[in-house]
Amino acid sequence: MSLVASDETRFPPITRRLRLGFVGGGRGALIGQVHAMGARLSNRWQAVAGALSSDPEIALASGRDWLLERVYTDYDEMAQREAALADGIEAVVISTPNWTHKNIAEAFLKKGIDVICDKPLTTMVEDALELVRLQRDTGLIVGVTYPYTSHAMVRQARELVLAGELGRVRQIHVEYMQDWATEPDDPNFKGARWRRDPQRMGRASATNDIGTHAFHLAHFVTGLEMVECRAEFHVCGAPKAMEDTAFVQTRYEGGVPGTLWVTQAAPGNYCGLRIRVYGDKAGLEWDQEKPEFLRFNRLNQPETVFVRGHGAGMVTQAERLITLPRGHPEALSDAWANLYTEFAIAIEARRNGKSVPAGLLNYPSVADGARGVKFVDACADSHEAGSVWRDCKLVI
Amino acid sequence: MSLVASDETRFPPITRRLRLGFVGGGRGALIGQVHAMGARLSNRWQAVAGALSSDPEIALASGRDWLLERVYTDYDEMAQREAALADGIEAVVISTPNWTHKNIAEAFLKKGIDVICDKPLTTMVEDALELVRLQRDTGLIVGVTYPYTSHAMVRQARELVLAGELGRVRQIHVEYMQDWATEPDDPNFKGARWRRDPQRMGRASATNDIGTHAFHLAHFVTGLEMVECRAEFHVCGAPKAMEDTAFVQTRYEGGVPGTLWVTQAAPGNYCGLRIRVYGDKAGLEWDQEKPEFLRFNRLNQPETVFVRGHGAGMVTQAERLITLPRGHPEALSDAWANLYTEFAIAIEARRNGKSVPAGLLNYPSVADGARGVKFVDACADSHEAGSVWRDCKLVI
Amino acid sequence: MSLVASDETRFPPITRRLRLGFVGGGRGALIGQVHAMGARLSNRWQAVAGALSSDPEIALASGRDWLLERVYTDYDEMAQREAALADGIEAVVISTPNWTHKNIAEAFLKKGIDVICDKPLTTMVEDALELVRLQRDTGLIVGVTYPYTSHAMVRQARELVLAGELGRVRQIHVEYMQDWATEPDDPNFKGARWRRDPQRMGRASATNDIGTHAFHLAHFVTGLEMVECRAEFHVCGAPKAMEDTAFVQTRYEGGVPGTLWVTQAAPGNYCGLRIRVYGDKAGLEWDQEKPEFLRFNRLNQPETVFVRGHGAGMVTQAERLITLPRGHPEALSDAWANLYTEFAIAIEARRNGKSVPAGLLNYPSVADGARGVKFVDACADSHEAGSVWRDCKLVI
Amino acid sequence: MSLVASDETRFPPITRRLRLGFVGGGRGALIGQVHAMGARLSNRWQAVAGALSSDPEIALASGRDWLLERVYTDYDEMAQREAALADGIEAVVISTPNWTHKNIAEAFLKKGIDVICDKPLTTMVEDALELVRLQRDTGLIVGVTYPYTSHAMVRQARELVLAGELGRVRQIHVEYMQDWATEPDDPNFKGARWRRDPQRMGRASATNDIGTHAFHLAHFVTGLEMVECRAEFHVCGAPKAMEDTAFVQTRYEGGVPGTLWVTQAAPGNYCGLRIRVYGDKAGLEWDQEKPEFLRFNRLNQPETVFVRGHGAGMVTQAERLITLPRGHPEALSDAWANLYTEFAIAIEARRNGKSVPAGLLNYPSVADGARGVKFVDACADSHEAGSVWRDCKLVI
Repeated sequence: MSLVASDETRFPPITRRLRLGFVGGGRGALIGQVHAMGARLSNRWQAVAGALSSDPEIALASGRDWLLERVYTDYDEMAQREAALADGIEAVVISTPNWTHKNIAEAFLKKGIDVICDKPLTTMVEDALELVRLQRDTGLIVGVTYPYTSHAMVRQARELVLAGELGRVRQIHVEYMQDWATEPDDPNFKGARWRRDPQRMGRASATNDIGTHAFHLAHFVTGLEMVECRAEFHVCGAPKAMEDTAFVQTRYEGGVPGTLWVTQAAPGNYCGLRIRVYGDKAGLEWDQEKPEFLRFNRLNQPETVFVRGHGAGMVTQAERLITLPRGHPEALSDAWANLYTEFAIAIEARRNGKSVPAGLLNYPSVADGARGVKFVDACADSHEAGSVWRDCKLVI
Repeated sequence: MSLVASDETRFPPITRRLRLGFVGGGRGALIGQVHAMGARLSNRWQAVAGALSSDPEIALASGRDWLLERVYTDYDEMAQREAALADGIEAVVISTPNWTHKNIAEAFLKKGIDVICDKPLTTMVEDALELVRLQRDTGLIVGVTYPYTSHAMVRQARELVLAGELGRVRQIHVEYMQDWATEPDDPNFKGARWRRDPQRMGRASATNDIGTHAFHLAHFVTGLEMVECRAEFHVCGAPKAMEDTAFVQTRYEGGVPGTLWVTQAAPGNYCGLRIRVYGDKAGLEWDQEKPEFLRFNRLNQPETVFVRGHGAGMVTQAERLITLPRGHPEALSDAWANLYTEFAIAIEARRNGKSVPAGLLNYPSVADGARGVKFVDACADSHEAGSVWRDCKLVI
Repeated sequence: MSLVASDETRFPPITRRLRLGFVGGGRGALIGQVHAMGARLSNRWQAVAGALSSDPEIALASGRDWLLERVYTDYDEMAQREAALADGIEAVVISTPNWTHKNIAEAFLKKGIDVICDKPLTTMVEDALELVRLQRDTGLIVGVTYPYTSHAMVRQARELVLAGELGRVRQIHVEYMQDWATEPDDPNFKGARWRRDPQRMGRASATNDIGTHAFHLAHFVTGLEMVECRAEFHVCGAPKAMEDTAFVQTRYEGGVPGTLWVTQAAPGNYCGLRIRVYGDKAGLEWDQEKPEFLRFNRLNQPETVFVRGHGAGMVTQAERLITLPRGHPEALSDAWANLYTEFAIAIEARRNGKSVPAGLLNYPSVADGARGVKFVDACADSHEAGSVWRDCKLVI
Repeated sequence: MSLVASDETRFPPITRRLRLGFVGGGRGALIGQVHAMGARLSNRWQAVAGALSSDPEIALASGRDWLLERVYTDYDEMAQREAALADGIEAVVISTPNWTHKNIAEAFLKKGIDVICDKPLTTMVEDALELVRLQRDTGLIVGVTYPYTSHAMVRQARELVLAGELGRVRQIHVEYMQDWATEPDDPNFKGARWRRDPQRMGRASATNDIGTHAFHLAHFVTGLEMVECRAEFHVCGAPKAMEDTAFVQTRYEGGVPGTLWVTQAAPGNYCGLRIRVYGDKAGLEWDQEKPEFLRFNRLNQPETVFVRGHGAGMVTQAERLITLPRGHPEALSDAWANLYTEFAIAIEARRNGKSVPAGLLNYPSVADGARGVKFVDACADSHEAGSVWRDCKLVI
């Protein structure tokens, strides 16, 4: 193995906790709390303000739950007030329903506040491109929370590919399998409702919800841009207005073929996000439900399993994300913490007018978010046109 | 679990060993020896005659290796002479290159000798249909060796599906992954050469070679007929004249969607044949490299793993195939032995003019063989037409 | 399965963050940071003060690293000052070398401050008993950080046993395997040095360090007290003054036999803590490196695997600890957070003069800590006497 | 990896099938049929004669089942008649109850017939030593059927150890876990009855039945002789006259410590025979229920998994036993076939007055059988004396 940890710098030490605000995440919502957990575990943030719900009563109650100092019922008001405070928030997390991301992000960016936005970035490509332009024009940080690529072993996988350890990449397969949509939606779970409502969800449902994770993972690990896709949408679970399953054939730059398959109606699958990449020298496989292990197989050699931890073949870019020693398992909370560590470093540097060493950070950018939106749009186009090939490369 | 072993009969006891002949399988060929191994392990056959190679020298040497009583250099001569002998062979195994199966099968069937033919049955649909007709007209036994569906746990999977334990089947996924075609073919391995020669292999290579196994497995486990497919062929390994990789989208009767994916160029995969079937009540998964286990997941229940062995939820149709107790692992030799057990029972009954109890045997028939040929043909058609949907249902 | 989630209360909501102080954990120490991480992730604590090192320079630098408000260089001074402050710490975490635990705990308890102490509680049985008495006399909370029993699936395992799902427990096996002591100690790793120094470590090394975890896990899951043990100590890694490996035969109340085996010199093992419990109706197995899964096997039934998450057979006592949905893996950080959640609830209730519902909390008590010390002592006695049986039941 | 397949010779080709006789194995017995299966699959034997039961009626019926040419009801008569025939048997398989092995083996050896004997070789050490002497005096072949060490991956494990890939061996752990004795014995299963009868089984039950397998596996893989053991016997399943569980502490030559643990009362375990060996450079693990894989871990390196098949790091001594390519799983039938292949080669060479190249064969010898008997005896002695250390080294 020619890969050795290089001398590249570690993350800078923690000197203070940045002030963080939240839009979305009130009682009954899961994902906002997961963001907060990642921020907390990273130890680089303190949650101080929030507009956790558009329902004022829930917003207030949730603000108390979160021990926030300042609670808002309206994100616009929050953006204005926080921007005006000397010790206002230094970044905002947006974890509201998808179709509201764009306006909220815009409101904060226009006030000079860095944005951490849940995926998908927006429901429409044009909105995503506007955010890309706004980010470029303002120079602010806009991060998108695809947390899975912040696992140390995914970073390890990426470096193996980029270092040529697989040879030339020849095929790429990703899948994300769940089972909760097998049954009719729980009427008490608001998220399930809007996820199947074309008015709000946009042109696709499962493809948006979990397909974007699979799409980003494939792009991140291989460094290759997906250029074309061909999708079939299906309803394999309880009857519903939008797809819960999508089979996508994919083509990456250089003509590399692949598949991307998502379903929310496969009993016995919870968050079965898996990637398999095969080159002409070796292959690799990773499964998010067993995130500590990376299977790596050189052709005609015994199998190799990398296990997260210092040493034992880990590369610098992965080592940097390690908190606990090998065998003390890390998991999803830790991946979110890694993500929030990178956001903090980027945002603190920007605020201090400092630059970050090239290659130090690898959080998903606004462009990565826009790529996902374009992918979903191309899948929907393809499906509606009878599953023909559609261009899905984002042109910024 | 409502499934319990029923009172159905066990296999009849062994009373004598049937005489078996072989065409193909000479020195340098693997699969003929695997057939012989299965026949031997079943204890219901004795190998007595063979035309193991078209090269007379190899035929004779191989015949000695196999300790055969009668060695031929020509299958036609073998068919005639054996048919004329009082103690001639009672069945012939055909494990020659694919494009020769049809003529050889015909030669033996016309002499009244039952046929056990390797897959794919033929390289052309019309040839397959002729064999189907010839079988029907003669009433002889024609079995096709898809061995994987003779694993006890595949029988268990099938019965779970047929008994409705998964609810209505909603999606079907099969894959077969190998890695030997990543590199240029070994010039000493004859099989690799003809597998990539369109003149001999027919319209597809990997799809023929391993796709037919995946196709049969999906059909066998679910009991559903595939009606349409849409294929993309790729070369992902060393350059070659025919595909080593195929991504196929599939549709089964009743509109059930699925995927079928095969590759011979995925480093670190050996014989990665896997099936995943999801219904509206439960799902199941089976992997031929770990054939003793069947993962079965009811929605919102703890996971269930069936382990091969008497009792513990095994159904009659699977129990019948069990030789060794739970924990004494069986594997591929045992699956081949099961197949040869069923062939022997069918052929002995036919020769004795007896009937076999309904449901006792489940070996792949000539129609199953022809279905596979039709599937390959439809994939090739689809690919050549730009990966459009093609009808792949066999009409006999 | 007769086990269903009962109506027992959930954990009370968070209303404020308790103020936490730390003794130990300065630069170069790992475990103090893991405590801090668990406290942070639980969201029920804020770290405000610390005496992180006995070296004043390190203490100050480490205090800055941790963003503490008040930094001390002496734990005694810290105890006095914090006790005197209106907003002084509400609990102290002790993560110093083992032989210092007792005096530090005493100093804080005498000032009325609740204590969270790393394992082993002390190095001598008499010291442990003094702390037990001091806790009883003061009525303060003393928790001991055996984090593994705060995994949801370990709670699930315990409830299965206590509910009689395994029948009568007949044998109990625990092991904890690591590999870092295979090689000579890293001279830069202070912890390795004192771990092999009988003057400081007490009468055993690996048995103290990881044996206590295995001991507690067995006790916790089965609810049975270990009454006798017989130990053999070995050095299987690089030469050293104390054992890195111990094979212990064990006997629990009711005459239940078992084994307990620990080593720090088994290459390829990182934190291989595993428990296997067998009753006359069923058995279970859990592995801390794959903490999300609990294998449960009823005799003559298919295998069952419980997967952490709401529903699907999880009992209330395990459900209560769940943060993320099934398939979003939790791991060691989450177990520590669970532990710190329980400490916070216990301490806040005590400070408020409230009682906690019976069965709500299950953190390791000072008596659990003392049991571990007694076990180590009995093992050392046994080994020194030629591996004879020794009583290891704690009499308080 | 410095290990490469050497130029050592392959097994000689098959030129004829040796004639094999059986004592034991009649209707209702399992193990005789497993022997026959291995012999058949090896293709180097034909079963021609047998005294399958001491009950004449069963002997005759079983002989018909087995399609034998010559059926006896008395082993003595069989030995005499077969020895007198020009085409009499060339070896006899003994798979009768343990306490009868010695007299039967003697009867055949005295007639000049090579012996293949099931384990344990005898129930008393003195009997075993007599067979050792008789073998030495006659120069005949006496093999003992410990089949697990005939798995290719166990041979691979052994060669890794012998080649020094693990460094100096520092600890050795074996276990064999089953669950069938959890419940009262099935009154229809004769084998269960005599297995718990001290008059017939000898001084130990589970230790004899499965402990000998674990003992031989440890010896085979490490090449080290066990010199001392200390055993505790338990009944952990249904009440019975002899132990169903034994915990043994072990010491090998050079002072290498270890554990050996067997139970037949651990629900959810079928044939859980596992070995773990740790040296000062690396460790290895193998599990007979997943016999195709060998986990090998160098200290501070990524994990390595060897998968059975040609190439990919397999050594000559393991390669030689490979029938099917990687990914076409072999299992227990194949291990038995390997054993019968080696017996055939040894016996044919002896009969032809030829020698076998050194290192070509590795079947368990009569001395290996005697070692197992001595081990069981030492365990029983140890247990009865209060679990003190007992010498268990065989002195021939």
